[in-house]
This record gives sequence, structure tokens and C-alpha cells, in this order.
Amino acid sequence: MTNPTAAMLVIGDEILSGRTRDSNMHHLAQELTKQGIDLKEVRVVSDDRAAIVSAVRALSQAFDHVFTSGGIGPTHDDITADCIAEAFGRSIGVRDDARALLGAHYARQNMEFNAARQRMARIPEGAALIDNPVSIAPGFTLENVHVMAGVPSVFTAMVASVLPKLTGGQPLLSQSLRLMRGEGEIAEPLGALAERYPALSIGSYPFQRDGIYGANIVIRGTNGVEVDAAMTELSKLFPA
Amino acid sequence: MTNPTAAMLVIGDEILSGRTRDSNMHHLAQELTKQGIDLKEVRVVSDDRAAIVSAVRALSQAFDHVFTSGGIGPTHDDITADCIAEAFGRSIGVRDDARALLGAHYARQNMEFNAARQRMARIPEGAALIDNPVSIAPGFTLENVHVMAGVPSVFTAMVASVLPKLTGGQPLLSQSLRLMRGEGEIAEPLGALAERYPALSIGSYPFQRDGIYGANIVIRGTNGVEVDAAMTELSKLFPA
Repeated sequence: MTNPTAAMLVIGDEILSGRTRDSNMHHLAQELTKQGIDLKEVRVVSDDRAAIVSAVRALSQAFDHVFTSGGIGPTHDDITADCIAEAFGRSIGVRDDARALLGAHYARQNMEFNAARQRMARIPEGAALIDNPVSIAPGFTLENVHVMAGVPSVFTAMVASVLPKLTGGQPLLSQSLRLMRGEGEIAEPLGALAERYPALSIGSYPFQRDGIYGANIVIRGTNGVEVDAAMTELSKLFPA
Repeated sequence: MTNPTAAMLVIGDEILSGRTRDSNMHHLAQELTKQGIDLKEVRVVSDDRAAIVSAVRALSQAFDHVFTSGGIGPTHDDITADCIAEAFGRSIGVRDDARALLGAHYARQNMEFNAARQRMARIPEGAALIDNPVSIAPGFTLENVHVMAGVPSVFTAMVASVLPKLTGGQPLLSQSLRLMRGEGEIAEPLGALAERYPALSIGSYPFQRDGIYGANIVIRGTNGVEVDAAMTELSKLFPA
């Protein structure tokens, strides 16, 4: 049995211009790994209608799940919901349940529920809402695409709302060993080890600090016994 | 005149599994913005031959430049150079000039220039080397694809080697204003402002801290006079 696959689509000029450093990708990657859903690809595109629609279609067809981040607020540059509707040929409009959630929220805060805020209740036809305990304005799931906010605290809360509803696979187990040797020295025996364990993913992540070369070797797989066995062999190959 | 466009391809299981937080994207985004090259898309794919080859082809056709990071070391999981050769139908082998660079480097350090290390001199036919002052093993440019290491200190050094050789466009100027008001309150006048300045990109980046809602408004464009004028209007719309 193979694990379900996923892709992420990050929407936002601010990431591509270097103004903002994305943190949602790292968070989602960690959460999916825990749940046994394999994140296979991430794309970052700008606030551009054609780019978003085409990426949503491509990723939705290629993977079991797509998670998007960004572009669902009340301002003119928030076009994600419209793009998702377009990608799936659905209509979009203000939906009663989303409007009720937001209306109650603004009433509690004595804030005007104006036209811009009502935009956040625009949900494509047939979508299911994603709960947002932080700032109420909901995300939504349409087909296999889960649409979430870009603000990290809200994104994190929405991921926590969505993930328990998805069927996960076998969590990826991983063990790592830090070797204070250059990659060129360990490459040959490490490659042979990887060939002996074709079901595992054995990665080498080099680093260099103060002129000293080293590498973190990470062994990943869903079978814990096999991961243990490979790590034992690895430790014997390169005694400390 | 429009600016040259670019995409980035990050290659590495370690990013997608959440083990490592990518920092190369943020660095490249900032450097390209300074040089007037518009970063339009970033993709992150795993150490998978088919995924890398297909992403390289798609991005190379769609954008003026493609910058890759990761997968050019000496270990078995470093398959980027082979994938680039495959994407462009080129042969690949150990090249004399790259071998000479690396041979001299290891001789200076009294380290064996073994088979694994010689792998780092494998360069696709017709590529130009990218200088690596940090750890010598070169990157390379083939067609419009610039292939660089994933280790951040090396990636940064290679970006510094490559960028001065590329023709930039007009640097994107940006000004920002921090508003302590919720996006829902500013959305309407902000949208009208964006319509009055179609050549500018006006983005709203909301935040929430200790229950207080605010947004950073960023105005970007290549015409400084126009950016100034829009910022002046914005400040008048929302006096502090």
C-alpha cells in the first residue's frame, strides 16, 4: 500500500519578491509527514489569475490532495477563491452559512460587516467550509483542493481543522546520523547501502561549518525494522 | 520594456519531508528583485528523476531563466546534473577543466580525489561552469538553466557568481506602509487606489498580533515617481 500524495500551492507576490519568507510550507510538510501523506511538490506562484488556475488544475490532477495558502482575504489582490472556482468550472457567490459566521463575528466586535468583509463569504459552489478558529473567515475544500489563508497563525489553525478528516497512510519514520566526514569520503559505501535497502530513502545532507565538512545522513521509510537495520549498518560503516 | 522572467527549482526530499527549512528561495528572490529579474514561479520537487526532468523542461520553456538548487554533490542521491542533461538531450561526463579544479583542491588538502569526488566533475555537454569559491565543486549553466548547490553558503556564492553575467531589467522599487486597521476596513479604498494605478502592484499583507489586526500595504513598480504618488495618496487615505 502506498501513501496518499499531496502538493502545496503557495499564492503570493510577497514570497516571490523576497519581501516575506514563507513558513507555511515547512509547517505543512512536517504535519503531512506525521500523518503519512507524502508531499511530492510545492509551487509558489504570484497573484496572477492564469498562473493560479493552471497550477490548481495541474496539481489537482497529479496528486491526491492539494493544499493552497494565501489570497483569501477581503482586499482586491485576494483572488484565490475565484481562481479555484474557475479551475473547476464552478460558480461562486456569497454563501449563507459563511455569511452567518462572519456576520456574528463582526457583530460581537461591533465592527461593520461591510462589502469587503462580505467578500470573504464568497465560496465556490459545492465546497465544504474549513473551520478558522483564529479569525473566523473560513477556508474551503473543493474536490481535492483545500484552500487556506496565508497568515501563518490562520494557516496553521486551518491545517489542524482539515488534516484529521483526511485518510493518512503509514507515517514516514526517519532516523539520522551526523557524520563529521566530507560527503566525498562516505559516498561510495553509502551508495552501496542505499542499493541494499531499495525500499528506504537514504539521503545525505552536507554541511560546512568553520571549514569542517560533514553530512547528516537521513534514513526514511515506513518499515521501522528496516530503518533500524539500515541505521545499524550505517553506524558500523562509519564508527565515531 | 518588460523585465526578464525567472523561475526557481528546488530539488530535495529534505524540504518536502519537513526536515529542512529552505532558505535559498528567499535569498534568490531578494537578489533577483534587486537586479530587475522577475521571479514568477518556484517549484520544489523530490530527488526523483522524472519529476526533475519534467519540471526543468516546463520551466525552461516558460521563463527566461531557471535557477536550480540542490542535488549536485558526490552521493548517490545527487542526480541533478544527469537530469539536466536528460532534459536537454545532452551527453554528460567528467570534464577536464572541472576535474582539474577539483583535483588541485583535494591535492592542496591532502585528500584523496576518489571516484565519488570525481562525480562532481560530471558536467553536461556544452555547459558553462559556475564558479564556487566556497567548496570548489562547480555549478553550471546549460541553455537558460543555472544549476547550483543546495548548501546555503555555496548556493549564495554561486548566485553571486552568476547574477552579474545576466542582463537585468529595471529594479522593482517598493514602498510599504503599516496600517493598524483590519483589512476589511481598508479594502474598498485600497482597491480603488489599485485601479487608479494599473501599472503598479499594490499588495495587502494582513497580520494579527495580540488580538490587534493590521496590514502592511506594499506598493511596487519600476517607475519611482508613480510609486511615490501612489504612496502619498495612500497615506492621505489612512492618516495615522
